[in-house]
Amino acid sequence: MSFSPLDSALTGPLFATAAMRAVWSDEARLGAMLTTEAALARAEAGLVPDGLADAVAAIGPERLDPAAIGRATSLSAVPTIPFVKAVQALLPPQLERGFHKAATTQDILDTALVLQLRDALALVAAELRAILPALSALADRHRGTPCAGRTYGQHGAPLTFGFKVAVWLAGIADTAAQLPALRARALRASLAGPVGTLAGLGEDGPRVADRFAAELGLRPAPVAWHARRGAVAATGCWAAELIGTVAKMATDVANLCSTEVGEAAEPFQPGRGGSSAMPHKRNPVSCTVILAAHAAAPGHAASLLGSMAVPHERPPGLWHAEWLALPTLFGLLSGALHEARTLAEGLEVDPARMRANLGITRGLLFADAAAALLGRTVGRGKAHELVEQAATTVRDTGADLRAVLEARAPGLDLAPAFDLAPSVAAASGWVDRARAESDRVLALLGD
Amino acid sequence: MSFSPLDSALTGPLFATAAMRAVWSDEARLGAMLTTEAALARAEAGLVPDGLADAVAAIGPERLDPAAIGRATSLSAVPTIPFVKAVQALLPPQLERGFHKAATTQDILDTALVLQLRDALALVAAELRAILPALSALADRHRGTPCAGRTYGQHGAPLTFGFKVAVWLAGIADTAAQLPALRARALRASLAGPVGTLAGLGEDGPRVADRFAAELGLRPAPVAWHARRGAVAATGCWAAELIGTVAKMATDVANLCSTEVGEAAEPFQPGRGGSSAMPHKRNPVSCTVILAAHAAAPGHAASLLGSMAVPHERPPGLWHAEWLALPTLFGLLSGALHEARTLAEGLEVDPARMRANLGITRGLLFADAAAALLGRTVGRGKAHELVEQAATTVRDTGADLRAVLEARAPGLDLAPAFDLAPSVAAASGWVDRARAESDRVLALLGD
Amino acid sequence: MSFSPLDSALTGPLFATAAMRAVWSDEARLGAMLTTEAALARAEAGLVPDGLADAVAAIGPERLDPAAIGRATSLSAVPTIPFVKAVQALLPPQLERGFHKAATTQDILDTALVLQLRDALALVAAELRAILPALSALADRHRGTPCAGRTYGQHGAPLTFGFKVAVWLAGIADTAAQLPALRARALRASLAGPVGTLAGLGEDGPRVADRFAAELGLRPAPVAWHARRGAVAATGCWAAELIGTVAKMATDVANLCSTEVGEAAEPFQPGRGGSSAMPHKRNPVSCTVILAAHAAAPGHAASLLGSMAVPHERPPGLWHAEWLALPTLFGLLSGALHEARTLAEGLEVDPARMRANLGITRGLLFADAAAALLGRTVGRGKAHELVEQAATTVRDTGADLRAVLEARAPGLDLAPAFDLAPSVAAASGWVDRARAESDRVLALLGD
Amino acid sequence: MSFSPLDSALTGPLFATAAMRAVWSDEARLGAMLTTEAALARAEAGLVPDGLADAVAAIGPERLDPAAIGRATSLSAVPTIPFVKAVQALLPPQLERGFHKAATTQDILDTALVLQLRDALALVAAELRAILPALSALADRHRGTPCAGRTYGQHGAPLTFGFKVAVWLAGIADTAAQLPALRARALRASLAGPVGTLAGLGEDGPRVADRFAAELGLRPAPVAWHARRGAVAATGCWAAELIGTVAKMATDVANLCSTEVGEAAEPFQPGRGGSSAMPHKRNPVSCTVILAAHAAAPGHAASLLGSMAVPHERPPGLWHAEWLALPTLFGLLSGALHEARTLAEGLEVDPARMRANLGITRGLLFADAAAALLGRTVGRGKAHELVEQAATTVRDTGADLRAVLEARAPGLDLAPAFDLAPSVAAASGWVDRARAESDRVLALLGD
Repeated sequence: MSFSPLDSALTGPLFATAAMRAVWSDEARLGAMLTTEAALARAEAGLVPDGLADAVAAIGPERLDPAAIGRATSLSAVPTIPFVKAVQALLPPQLERGFHKAATTQDILDTALVLQLRDALALVAAELRAILPALSALADRHRGTPCAGRTYGQHGAPLTFGFKVAVWLAGIADTAAQLPALRARALRASLAGPVGTLAGLGEDGPRVADRFAAELGLRPAPVAWHARRGAVAATGCWAAELIGTVAKMATDVANLCSTEVGEAAEPFQPGRGGSSAMPHKRNPVSCTVILAAHAAAPGHAASLLGSMAVPHERPPGLWHAEWLALPTLFGLLSGALHEARTLAEGLEVDPARMRANLGITRGLLFADAAAALLGRTVGRGKAHELVEQAATTVRDTGADLRAVLEARAPGLDLAPAFDLAPSVAAASGWVDRARAESDRVLALLGD
Repeated sequence: MSFSPLDSALTGPLFATAAMRAVWSDEARLGAMLTTEAALARAEAGLVPDGLADAVAAIGPERLDPAAIGRATSLSAVPTIPFVKAVQALLPPQLERGFHKAATTQDILDTALVLQLRDALALVAAELRAILPALSALADRHRGTPCAGRTYGQHGAPLTFGFKVAVWLAGIADTAAQLPALRARALRASLAGPVGTLAGLGEDGPRVADRFAAELGLRPAPVAWHARRGAVAATGCWAAELIGTVAKMATDVANLCSTEVGEAAEPFQPGRGGSSAMPHKRNPVSCTVILAAHAAAPGHAASLLGSMAVPHERPPGLWHAEWLALPTLFGLLSGALHEARTLAEGLEVDPARMRANLGITRGLLFADAAAALLGRTVGRGKAHELVEQAATTVRDTGADLRAVLEARAPGLDLAPAFDLAPSVAAASGWVDRARAESDRVLALLGD
Repeated sequence: MSFSPLDSALTGPLFATAAMRAVWSDEARLGAMLTTEAALARAEAGLVPDGLADAVAAIGPERLDPAAIGRATSLSAVPTIPFVKAVQALLPPQLERGFHKAATTQDILDTALVLQLRDALALVAAELRAILPALSALADRHRGTPCAGRTYGQHGAPLTFGFKVAVWLAGIADTAAQLPALRARALRASLAGPVGTLAGLGEDGPRVADRFAAELGLRPAPVAWHARRGAVAATGCWAAELIGTVAKMATDVANLCSTEVGEAAEPFQPGRGGSSAMPHKRNPVSCTVILAAHAAAPGHAASLLGSMAVPHERPPGLWHAEWLALPTLFGLLSGALHEARTLAEGLEVDPARMRANLGITRGLLFADAAAALLGRTVGRGKAHELVEQAATTVRDTGADLRAVLEARAPGLDLAPAFDLAPSVAAASGWVDRARAESDRVLALLGD
Repeated sequence: MSFSPLDSALTGPLFATAAMRAVWSDEARLGAMLTTEAALARAEAGLVPDGLADAVAAIGPERLDPAAIGRATSLSAVPTIPFVKAVQALLPPQLERGFHKAATTQDILDTALVLQLRDALALVAAELRAILPALSALADRHRGTPCAGRTYGQHGAPLTFGFKVAVWLAGIADTAAQLPALRARALRASLAGPVGTLAGLGEDGPRVADRFAAELGLRPAPVAWHARRGAVAATGCWAAELIGTVAKMATDVANLCSTEVGEAAEPFQPGRGGSSAMPHKRNPVSCTVILAAHAAAPGHAASLLGSMAVPHERPPGLWHAEWLALPTLFGLLSGALHEARTLAEGLEVDPARMRANLGITRGLLFADAAAALLGRTVGRGKAHELVEQAATTVRDTGADLRAVLEARAPGLDLAPAFDLAPSVAAASGWVDRARAESDRVLALLGD
């Protein structure tokens, strides 16, 4: 690996998508920094030499040497400083002195980060726009597929597989629905100068800051956010929360794919999840990726929350700590969503096995309904007694509850109590509500 | 202490407010559970015996024995089960059998939690409605108080104390602004039955669920949220984030209160922050409470995020894990906001010391401005050389930069370069923007 | 609840043991503080009035009013200050002025904490001394009970249930083995005075500090640990790690107890894990408690690690943050170990179901062995081809692998390939090694 | 950046050392995997073809294509599978079939990880062997340098700078002292086969496993550790704790370097910590790196602790989650230790400024001593009254406490009360004890 397996050639393709990797590459970062500086020059039109913006915009990131910048960063602690020098060296002298005017290192890095974040959120939104409809269709397809409902790992009562999917869907949609507000909050420019007042521009400051934001299609901040980092932490928490919503699905799928449950399998792909030694296995690779991401994400979110208590106008450490957490969260999220989409679009479902599993407790799942039905004839107390005795017989002998009860209460039609139809019907209504909610959220996600 | 110092008689009053303590007391919880059950009975009118709702509503939490319920909870794992039995024992037989109809244990606990959360959020909003105006006034009062801007712990350039406060204000407001959306999301009822389909009510399910929510003034959920916990995690993250915003202020205040900086002091209160052995001390108690809360909060938020991956319809452990985190977060938040309000309303500020501290570097803070001013006369290169040499002299001899420069460039009026006015003016404009933003957020918080 | 469900009457008995609760009660804390002050007076014999130590030792915690101390703590930030005043008020004037001589608030609280920690670790060791032999016996009892080995949730190859237990055992033992070193490190006294130099005692300082530690049966520290908190963090990490070891067991047990797997059940106790609505259920209560503790513990450990970076001689917040984490970790640990012991001593195991589950894949678990055996006769390549085709037939038709192969390779005795005995034998050797390791650790835990 | 700034060309050199980067590179990982397979072949002598071990040992990691393995890993979830195929393709057919015999993917990756960990711990030990003596010398050098002791950010009482360093030293040494035990615990081989029983080797299993470990200079495990991960979590916690110990030092140093305190500066290096806009600044780069690492580390440790609850013999996700945390922790640790060493070896200390700062409170630091001295003449009550009044005068007028008191109690020699010598002497004794403890630990670290 490298320090991070997301960055390793050996394991990177497993954990993160190529598109998200490109967003956070060194080249993309340098590109975003150049875009930021060009926008700054444009916003400072009249204050800096004519032609500066165009000259900066003409410089591509490939003209800069990341390794040289990196060596200097180990002295300066912030890559902006060597970056500025490197760009200045590429500019003609008459333009060079206007470059980076009134900005501070953090303005450039934070704004570049926001530009990268915008791209990252666009990738996330695109995956969500695929996942929600795919899950909605899956829920619809299986609205009538009976399946055991399980609480504390035990069969509780019947529901449908479509209902289970509807819960996944609603969970993902509920977090996805926060994306527009998050974008509105987090996608803002930073231009505030050394200590946040942008005093270097005198009374032009606020106007230039607003124009700078507009140039980049970002929101201006009411006041410097160098040292108030709630939106950064919230972005990380949201990413971790979204990973959590797909981890709920992955937890269920991994269990449904287990040998004993056997109600689902990850989409077949030649060579995927195989084991040389155990030819019968199909390991849940998608679940593995998602659950690994989920195990890592909360720690990064906590780190971002903990890094909010920055001293004064710029901290020795806590700003750098954000760098250690935020891009990794989006890397993890990219892999998790990619695999969630794979599951949503291709999960193999085995309705027959679901139905067979419903029979494992040999009718005990319907004990309640049977007691209610019997009660109408023999009275509530007597009915309970009968069912309780029958349940013991079921457990002791392996017989079926309905057969045992019918033997003890001959002549009664117990079929309605053992009917899955009411459970299926009840589940179905909620599938509709969840799908409608997902459609509402989908409309919020744009395209 | 107790296990939690928030619950200890010895330390509880330090860490959390009495009002927030009342919200999460056993009595309040039982009260919320009774309210929930009464609303359920009302929503099930026609399906349960007449009079049930009134009978339940007439039972006060003091009629229940928490210790007895607690003993039974160690068997049942969920307090709802002994709670239901205890309430049934207080109801007449003809009503008792309709009690808790179709609900599951988690419906009652989750809905009661939401009712408690609503009260907790109301307390939080009330504190925010006091903190924001108090900080806004403080920022306004000190919009013209010059103060050192500090980055990496070093003096960077001048700003004003009002500007610093404006950054605190905007930070808190930015997180506070999310409260309406959080309420809309998190304050929803849970009525979904054993596995989430509310099948026990047949086709009446959705209608009863909606009525139940309406009875409690809550939003109904599109589909069961027993096993999708994003909103719970997001609530915890928001609480931790809000603690983070006041921790930023506390970090600054603690440093401003330090002996060497000495620019501020926590509000004087007899006996507060004193030390028997060291009569000269006034320890920052408010900061201590806030920073302790901030050190603890991210771990709880991470735990909630990690607890989202629940298996199937109810998990063995991860739901219980929420109980371990969420109320504590609100306890910590209550103490942190209470102390933040104390600071916002009564911080003692020492403008003279701020001005004195600005002189510590003997004019080096203005080196840039001096070079610019000199440059107009002697040329940019020569100016830089002059200033650099002068700075060395300042560091070596303890002389003042302005005096050194004026000795070397006689006849030039360097006063404008050493003027704080432009920094003050630049800072002032941002104070206005931050205050306006705070007012906007304040209007969102209701009353 | 209270803020912490460990402290709630409704849920406390579920999450923590009464014995551990007593260790961290307010009364125990006051008692430990009194013990600490008495030892201090004894260590200062000659420097403080005669009779002081006895007078302090005669004061019981019940003489102090926790609520009054708590109110004052909200001003002083540290309960030691009102505690000292309250004790002084109970001492005769001629003794009172020698009380608490040269100590600082943190000395008393930290040393009292260590005394409580010693009691807590003794409770932990006692549980471990029960759990290790119980698991060792369980492993031994089931050394010959075949069971499916599962990787990624899929059947991998056969092992024995005793082997699974041996892995749990070795995991717990491996962490338990660190206890002696942890005790040696963490159980040290704190006597260092206001800034750590114990200057108030002049040249007597080190001697008094050593005597003080000896009085309490603790180790003296080489230099003040007011501001170096590695051992506190390490204690918390160890507690979380130990919870993790039993959480591994609980994860397995919860799955083994699931309806589809059905190979184990938590020990039967009337009323335990029941569900009024679902009479067939036996919810895994022990696993629920353990897994909830495990979800909470890492966040507390992280908080302790994060709280190590204290500024100077005593921090505004990070010391208090330890209080928020450490006792709770031991509360969680107490409940987790109690339930682990319940499982270790009484887990119900169903060897027949284990054997039945081994058949779910209809012989595919033995595909490897079959190919190897066939290979000796027909050649490796041909054998692989045969087995692969047979596996497809098994999956498509539901036939048994052995039968399919025997039909295709008549005359060959394939029984050895489908024999569980070699797996059982291999597993058995490791059970012995794990049990021996556990015995070695047990001897380290003392009694 | 890349996802991780440790892996970015732009920022990697700031955060981690080149030596630690080499330990966790893809090439090193492939090398460790090849070493592991060669040792396996050697341990299986007699069971695999002659010459296999030598043939494997002759293959260098450069013969393998990381990108190709990475692409396949996205299908297999584990790089061992394509790795094994790639190596087999490089072996002659008669050797190839014996390759990787009886091992499982996790054996190879875990053992390789341990080999990398061994190298990483060697680098850590080397840094510690430099840091401890350097800090010990610094403590010794400044054993007589008076300095303010600060609690809650306020001056408390005098101590020496050497004493402060001794506390840093003892803190680092206390954690460093755990390294031998950690090595003994964590540096063990994994050879356990698909489900942990190594059944593929029949009765040869244990013997081969022991020989395999011996070949690599590792400890054999009593039983498979595929699914018991306490030692991995403990390793991560230890790394985070060690970062915490140097973060304590960095917190102090950053404050000592602040403009107002000004008692220390990071070692001067041309271009380091500079700011183009603010020529007077010397930002604490070492502290920045350390404090960033410290903000990130606890979350990774928490993730490792949380990943212990693995289901059955290999989990879908939690093993992979370790990869996301452990190497990064060592990357962060490498940077933190490197910077700690820079500080330990070259911190610039300003004793004059320390002495000047001791005067900030104008004698109030000595109020206690003055009252004691006065008490001997005028009585304790009267003395306290005098000092209290004098303190008020000091605060109100800016006068010096000693002068005020001498004016009010003429004829008394108050000099002894304002003498720093006793504080210096008291501090000095502890410096000796801390240095002796450090020497003891140093001897444990080997060379």
